[in-house]
Amino acid sequence: MEPVIELVSTGDEVLTGLIVDTNAGWLSQRLLEQGWQVRRRFTVGDDRSDLVELFEQRSHLADLVIVNGGLGPTSDDISAEAMAAAAGIPLELNEHWLAVMQEKYSNRNRQMPRSNVKQAMLPQGAELIDNPVGTACGFAVRLNRAIFIFTPGVPSELKTMMEQEIIPRLATWFGQRGASEVRRFFLFGLSESGLSDRLDSQDWPAGITLGYRASLPTIEVKLIAEQASPEALAQAERQLLAEVGTHLLARDELDFRRSLGPLLDMQPLTVFEEASGGRLTDTISTITAEFEGHYLSGLPDEARDLGEWLQRSARGPALAIGAEGPQGVPVALLTAEHCQVQTLKVHFRDPLARRKLLAVAALDMLRRHLSRQPVMVDYDILPCSERLTLPC
Amino acid sequence: MEPVIELVSTGDEVLTGLIVDTNAGWLSQRLLEQGWQVRRRFTVGDDRSDLVELFEQRSHLADLVIVNGGLGPTSDDISAEAMAAAAGIPLELNEHWLAVMQEKYSNRNRQMPRSNVKQAMLPQGAELIDNPVGTACGFAVRLNRAIFIFTPGVPSELKTMMEQEIIPRLATWFGQRGASEVRRFFLFGLSESGLSDRLDSQDWPAGITLGYRASLPTIEVKLIAEQASPEALAQAERQLLAEVGTHLLARDELDFRRSLGPLLDMQPLTVFEEASGGRLTDTISTITAEFEGHYLSGLPDEARDLGEWLQRSARGPALAIGAEGPQGVPVALLTAEHCQVQTLKVHFRDPLARRKLLAVAALDMLRRHLSRQPVMVDYDILPCSERLTLPC
Repeated sequence: MEPVIELVSTGDEVLTGLIVDTNAGWLSQRLLEQGWQVRRRFTVGDDRSDLVELFEQRSHLADLVIVNGGLGPTSDDISAEAMAAAAGIPLELNEHWLAVMQEKYSNRNRQMPRSNVKQAMLPQGAELIDNPVGTACGFAVRLNRAIFIFTPGVPSELKTMMEQEIIPRLATWFGQRGASEVRRFFLFGLSESGLSDRLDSQDWPAGITLGYRASLPTIEVKLIAEQASPEALAQAERQLLAEVGTHLLARDELDFRRSLGPLLDMQPLTVFEEASGGRLTDTISTITAEFEGHYLSGLPDEARDLGEWLQRSARGPALAIGAEGPQGVPVALLTAEHCQVQTLKVHFRDPLARRKLLAVAALDMLRRHLSRQPVMVDYDILPCSERLTLPC
Repeated sequence: MEPVIELVSTGDEVLTGLIVDTNAGWLSQRLLEQGWQVRRRFTVGDDRSDLVELFEQRSHLADLVIVNGGLGPTSDDISAEAMAAAAGIPLELNEHWLAVMQEKYSNRNRQMPRSNVKQAMLPQGAELIDNPVGTACGFAVRLNRAIFIFTPGVPSELKTMMEQEIIPRLATWFGQRGASEVRRFFLFGLSESGLSDRLDSQDWPAGITLGYRASLPTIEVKLIAEQASPEALAQAERQLLAEVGTHLLARDELDFRRSLGPLLDMQPLTVFEEASGGRLTDTISTITAEFEGHYLSGLPDEARDLGEWLQRSARGPALAIGAEGPQGVPVALLTAEHCQVQTLKVHFRDPLARRKLLAVAALDMLRRHLSRQPVMVDYDILPCSERLTLPC
């Protein structure tokens, strides 16, 4: 039987939206990679009665509840207290953790503040879960049907504790799971609806699910294999790549250094840009240090003008993103052979989205050139009004 | 009586952490600005029985439940169907919304796909809520104690619907609230712990709460006034500004164009950078178009060398961020009077955080110069190892 797994995020800052709860998403993903699927998520503030009520209720309905946050030393950190109240047991001092905290402080030549003693007060009978990187220990408590695991809200502490302490325990408590596998593909230039029209109508191998996520400037397509054979996943991947062709920008993660770095270790590149702000330069500088990037105002806003300007201005391979003109923004790639320019229309209004799209469109021309593909292709999301190739 | 307000986020993509749920945080903040506080948040996947069970349960415990997502045309969009099942009523076609959708399509010279008809199927008796920017209409249903409001998952559609349709209804249903007021202050260079040590020990006017959020490259301090008088808030603001002094970078929102734009409409600036990638250029290009930005490799990594290089290289006012050296990264401001350079140590390891901090440190030198403040000051988070002023 699949265990019912639930997450509880605590804290007024999360509940009121002052901070975005990235821990819950990370926990869900990390558990999914291990083959466990989170069923429900709850978010409550630093309110004792709301927490007690929720813990009591979930103790009858879930097998595992991972609680995040509320383990700090201050008065609004009440997770342990609320758990003890829900279970009808007292808090008691964990002498071992008190000694660990005192040692952490003395190693830094500091006296432990009295307020930290609170972090060693755990519900009676709780199993301590070590926090190698902080003073908020975790702990596990069983109540009714559920095991509750309490974790710190600081993301780096949560992650360390999950990897080193909690995931190994889950395997013991719930048995090894057949881990589901997710493969990610980042595509540039296709629209989500166009892509799903093409892919959803196909037959896919058994056990394979497709997922989409539009995340400018790219679209992420996921192949999710649950209980599928490695052969089925490999077959699905071939099928996907045959369909999306050269629009594939990166696999697994959108790390331009990984996907473009090997291609860019060549003769130094020069970049000129206007409509993209400094975004193209900033992006390329995450890939390689050996290039020059220039933001200039007053660049041409028409394809032929930009191409000729670039031929006059650059020595060696270069990219240019011109000014915004009535037809769109001209984007040019200069190589030893010729200068290719296309004018792209950007429909998005958000300034940052526009800059990102233009920067990645220029990078995509370079990527296509370096991998010997056609440099100017149709992009669903960036209609092209003009294409020119000027001989050198 | 304060109404009990709850949010429900739906969708496998949110539940599994494939996308971060920014809608819930936005909704909480927007409601809080109107004086309504969200009490609990729930996240469930595209599972009919989980949704039905949750809607039924919350209908007895909440006054208002805002449900986000699951209104699209595809088979995994089941919010309306689950609500109808929870209430024990059928779905029925809303002829008005069907006509609206058909018109939206014909305005774009397209035929409405049959799958869209589903978006006009609402629980019997539901109140339609217009979506001016999409095909997913919202709707409101009363069940037991609660009013349920269904909203689309696309952030721009959600936001438009909230502003134009839902917030005005809330005032009708629950009465005008005494809106709490939040003022935000963005500070650069101070650490969160240093700041809270200085501020938390002070007495603050009645009804004023302080909030902190470290969000690189700045720290946000909030003054939250609940039922406090305008005088108390003004007094708290004076008190805060007296303490943080010239570290204030922006108010209300971290929009460099608003806070620095008026200062930058002067003679054109030139920027040179290396350790910050293209981040300084990219940031300044969001403020003004009339400047030049250059990313170069091989810039000096020592304060005096960078200052002298900048004096030789720039005509007119200029900023430079050098290479990373053993002492840190030199950052220089050249004005008509002199060249000021400081070497800053960046402790953060994340490359993007490092770039942002260096870029904002350089901008902060310019901001201080243009507002006639001392240009080089102590930053808690960027220790300075050397300061130089070279005469021109």
